Amino acid sequence: MQQECIVLNQDRNVTLTAYIQPVGGRFEYIPKRPAILVLPGGGYQYCSVREADPVAFAFLKAGYQAFVLNYSVGKFAAWPNPLEDVEQALTMIRSREDWNVYPDKVAVIGFSAGGHLAAAAATLAEERPNAAILGYAVAGSDVTGCNPTAPDTTKCVDQKTPPCFVFATCSDDVVPVQNSLDFCRALADAKISFESHIYAYGPHGFSTGVSGVHNRNTPLCDRVPDWVDDSVGFLRDVLGDFGDGKMTDPLCPRYTTGDNDPALSVDCTVGLLLENRQAVAVLGPLTAQLQGDLVKKMTLRGILGFAKMPADQINRIDEALRQIPNS
Amino acid sequence: MQQECIVLNQDRNVTLTAYIQPVGGRFEYIPKRPAILVLPGGGYQYCSVREADPVAFAFLKAGYQAFVLNYSVGKFAAWPNPLEDVEQALTMIRSREDWNVYPDKVAVIGFSAGGHLAAAAATLAEERPNAAILGYAVAGSDVTGCNPTAPDTTKCVDQKTPPCFVFATCSDDVVPVQNSLDFCRALADAKISFESHIYAYGPHGFSTGVSGVHNRNTPLCDRVPDWVDDSVGFLRDVLGDFGDGKMTDPLCPRYTTGDNDPALSVDCTVGLLLENRQAVAVLGPLTAQLQGDLVKKMTLRGILGFAKMPADQINRIDEALRQIPNS
Amino acid sequence: MQQECIVLNQDRNVTLTAYIQPVGGRFEYIPKRPAILVLPGGGYQYCSVREADPVAFAFLKAGYQAFVLNYSVGKFAAWPNPLEDVEQALTMIRSREDWNVYPDKVAVIGFSAGGHLAAAAATLAEERPNAAILGYAVAGSDVTGCNPTAPDTTKCVDQKTPPCFVFATCSDDVVPVQNSLDFCRALADAKISFESHIYAYGPHGFSTGVSGVHNRNTPLCDRVPDWVDDSVGFLRDVLGDFGDGKMTDPLCPRYTTGDNDPALSVDCTVGLLLENRQAVAVLGPLTAQLQGDLVKKMTLRGILGFAKMPADQINRIDEALRQIPNS
Amino acid sequence: MQQECIVLNQDRNVTLTAYIQPVGGRFEYIPKRPAILVLPGGGYQYCSVREADPVAFAFLKAGYQAFVLNYSVGKFAAWPNPLEDVEQALTMIRSREDWNVYPDKVAVIGFSAGGHLAAAAATLAEERPNAAILGYAVAGSDVTGCNPTAPDTTKCVDQKTPPCFVFATCSDDVVPVQNSLDFCRALADAKISFESHIYAYGPHGFSTGVSGVHNRNTPLCDRVPDWVDDSVGFLRDVLGDFGDGKMTDPLCPRYTTGDNDPALSVDCTVGLLLENRQAVAVLGPLTAQLQGDLVKKMTLRGILGFAKMPADQINRIDEALRQIPNS
Repeated sequence: MQQECIVLNQDRNVTLTAYIQPVGGRFEYIPKRPAILVLPGGGYQYCSVREADPVAFAFLKAGYQAFVLNYSVGKFAAWPNPLEDVEQALTMIRSREDWNVYPDKVAVIGFSAGGHLAAAAATLAEERPNAAILGYAVAGSDVTGCNPTAPDTTKCVDQKTPPCFVFATCSDDVVPVQNSLDFCRALADAKISFESHIYAYGPHGFSTGVSGVHNRNTPLCDRVPDWVDDSVGFLRDVLGDFGDGKMTDPLCPRYTTGDNDPALSVDCTVGLLLENRQAVAVLGPLTAQLQGDLVKKMTLRGILGFAKMPADQINRIDEALRQIPNS
Repeated sequence: MQQECIVLNQDRNVTLTAYIQPVGGRFEYIPKRPAILVLPGGGYQYCSVREADPVAFAFLKAGYQAFVLNYSVGKFAAWPNPLEDVEQALTMIRSREDWNVYPDKVAVIGFSAGGHLAAAAATLAEERPNAAILGYAVAGSDVTGCNPTAPDTTKCVDQKTPPCFVFATCSDDVVPVQNSLDFCRALADAKISFESHIYAYGPHGFSTGVSGVHNRNTPLCDRVPDWVDDSVGFLRDVLGDFGDGKMTDPLCPRYTTGDNDPALSVDCTVGLLLENRQAVAVLGPLTAQLQGDLVKKMTLRGILGFAKMPADQINRIDEALRQIPNS
Repeated sequence: MQQECIVLNQDRNVTLTAYIQPVGGRFEYIPKRPAILVLPGGGYQYCSVREADPVAFAFLKAGYQAFVLNYSVGKFAAWPNPLEDVEQALTMIRSREDWNVYPDKVAVIGFSAGGHLAAAAATLAEERPNAAILGYAVAGSDVTGCNPTAPDTTKCVDQKTPPCFVFATCSDDVVPVQNSLDFCRALADAKISFESHIYAYGPHGFSTGVSGVHNRNTPLCDRVPDWVDDSVGFLRDVLGDFGDGKMTDPLCPRYTTGDNDPALSVDCTVGLLLENRQAVAVLGPLTAQLQGDLVKKMTLRGILGFAKMPADQINRIDEALRQIPNS
Repeated sequence: MQQECIVLNQDRNVTLTAYIQPVGGRFEYIPKRPAILVLPGGGYQYCSVREADPVAFAFLKAGYQAFVLNYSVGKFAAWPNPLEDVEQALTMIRSREDWNVYPDKVAVIGFSAGGHLAAAAATLAEERPNAAILGYAVAGSDVTGCNPTAPDTTKCVDQKTPPCFVFATCSDDVVPVQNSLDFCRALADAKISFESHIYAYGPHGFSTGVSGVHNRNTPLCDRVPDWVDDSVGFLRDVLGDFGDGKMTDPLCPRYTTGDNDPALSVDCTVGLLLENRQAVAVLGPLTAQLQGDLVKKMTLRGILGFAKMPADQINRIDEALRQIPNS
């Protein structure tokens, strides 16, 4: 592994540490790798080592290139400094040829204040990550208590926001669990795919939750360390897995329905399809059965599966719908 | 195992099936068992066999007595019939001596409409369960679409609500994930301990998610089946584990802070303690350091742990606080 | 679930308890189910309830029909009585139409003495199971200490023996771990596919190892309960998974190489292929490179994969070899 | 993380790469760390990168200091060169103060030929590791095919051999599974604690088995990647876990009975105790009940637990026995 530490901004003490694994050779089916950028927590006052390398190791183990960003904190924490740092790091990760990163497979993970920053990158940045993992992240009205000039990310979720993985403990008394729930609510309302794990109990700042990072004498729900493998699985679902010479297609789409895609499909909600004259023509006599508020919220694929329509018939409808632009 | 099917209400076709495991003998350390009551889904129109026995098996395997309730559906579904059925079942489970159930260790689990019913039992019933597991449960304004006379459970969470475990998939297009998120928000606001797992994708009605219950040809996030063992772990945390002759003490308290308990303690929030003159006297010179909005929301245990106060010193403060009634 | 208790042999107190799940209807993709027959332990003196229903529940949860056999013990334990009981049970499980069992997907699982009996069924019976799971099973010279007239199963492994899953703890002082190791050695020598998990420490007789069956005050390696889900995965690998209207093809072949199959293939060892004149003709110039003791023990698929031959080329060789009988 | 590459032997191209995590500071409860030394495979011809860093990451994530040794291969592979390299590395790891390693908590992990080397270190070295993890390791008569001058480790297990964790796949056609089984048999006969996982199918050389290291197009039993976390758990059991300022006591003893310890105890086998006059005096009237071949092989703790003797009574006997030297 090649380790490299780059000063991104000398004035603000911003550094990017790169952990780069080889490609090709004995990894012959791996020409490039997906990447993850780690944003440690520390209340925008410092960057905690407990949420830096130990997190990078988990994703290195999974085959990712890993990066740790020590972003602007303390007297340099004023917005938008930290977000600028993240964007600068993302741009570098995507463009440095010798790091062998798939530029469209770069995730970000952040904890506490770093989780706020990761969510800001996912919702506000010009240069967006392709997925975000948010650990007991500050959001909502608690943001200003942590960084007075920083934006409330629950209000910033948009259609460019990538899929997110959100975790926390229910009894966190530093960053209340409502922060995570409200950010999930915003994602759900925007139909962005997300995954969320809220564990029954445990204090703020558990990082990976294993005994080498979190003192086992401080009670922590024993399911907490599962978030690590679960988040690796989530990235595999939304970015794809290592295939033969390229990444496989993602199993989890970016949006929870097809309503945001450029063309129509059976993954659109019935309500959207019924508003489109061409779609109604494709559906023909089926249209009569697609009534009722509940049905309109369902995807066409969902309702046809419910009705046991054979897969090939569903596929034919899908092909026809995909000819129609979603306007 | 003894299997028994009891007609609870002949007029409404309500039946309770009991799966009863032996106690004592070769299970010499087990004089009684915790129990779980399964409420299948089916839109208050029927009770699905896919969400009945396969769920019971998981908890039987963990050592629970298990019960499946076929509650009032279809033309008998008008409120409060189904809730009456659940209360009748809970009362019987707690009182039948030959079933060897710990009366204060009875959980309820429900799916979809059955999840709404389980949440109603947890928030509204006279006879409450000691924990509730809610699978892609209907809640919020979607309730009336499913059962016009049924209450919106997100509005009913109170201090008698037991700890809850909430799971769903993000892309459920029958019961939108907002139903689960909003119920969690209500639990969080009431400081009820809960755990929640929202998986990235998969259709409504996956039950345990394994191939013997959910057709593997219908895409489902591969982490979904984890909810089963995770919920068993959650019940262990909030009800206790099988000890020697009795259940062990729960690791997870009922409330996320001590603010709802009858006496004060270091698990109370600093804000609450500072409002109590006797508590302030116990804290003495410490009080001066317990300032700021963030600190007031934290528990005293949290802030003292943060400050590295030794455990025995924290315990001494705790003992003194526990002499003071929480009024 | 339908529960039925059948007296198989009144004179010897042999009973078979059947736990039968429905097929079709809401399980529309499941016309039949695989099955498992549970053989509890008890030193051929009794049948332990701790190794009966709690085990059945795990496989019921996975979608199996489950059966518990109370076989001939105590004064009726003389060989071949217990084996006769198992064969009688297997025959009935395979033939009772109303139990909806795939007759070629019937596994057996046994513990301690019951594990010896399961291994005897797998190696000696006329009516063989399709897979066997052996928990801290008696084998080798320890058999006679447990049942003086019973056979040493390590000596009985033959080509009709089905795939086996073997587990135990290293520190078992009732049935030493050598019993399990020696049985695995016999399977390996016969090239029967098997899986084996020996855990670091724990006493004899832990059953499923969870707190509802094994007293948590008796130290037990915390990985032990994993055998349950692992054995379910093993059965999926060797019997197939629930597909749409039928079971899928097994991922794990019955034998570790193709040397026992009726026709040649790339899964045969190079040594076997080189002895066959027709195979040598198919291999042509490749033959020259297939030299050396190490290479002769490898499968042709293994060595060609090593040499990075493209998959389609390997498939062409495979097709040609499959025309040649393995004589 | 500090990364350092040290040339251990310039003539033979032997290098040790150290990955060193911080102690103290925000890891305030961690004054030192346990360590692992990784020995990649490659048939003593090379050291594979696939079995080097990706393995180190797993143990770094768990909190270990990790080291990768590129030992003597190719024309330098003659015995005892590689073993000398390992001993040199172990000595350095234990003595370099700035690496902050507990000198009695240093494990070794090796794969294939590296697994042979790890086993040689565990059984033959002057400087022994405190635990060994052996992945599809060469052992028995297959050793000479791989390195003609190297010893057969199955013949070298002695009382100084530390606890071992052994894993492989059943269908490995390069290093037959018998290699692993026979090494386990030797450990069992010497009463060394071990753990072993043999998976149903998969090729030689899968490393951690995840898609970032093993090409998912090559079929591999889906339980294989479990060995990683299981081996971390095994090390926790035999070396202890991160406690407050020191490692906790191991849960798994080094030997499967107390027969090898300097003093007697209830963990000795009954057979050993009955041969000791002082022990017989301690046991008193109990002695009469401790008869029979099966009982003599059991530990006294095991037989007394079986007989439901209360824990405090067992502890009193234990204390008395611990006064008696094991001669």
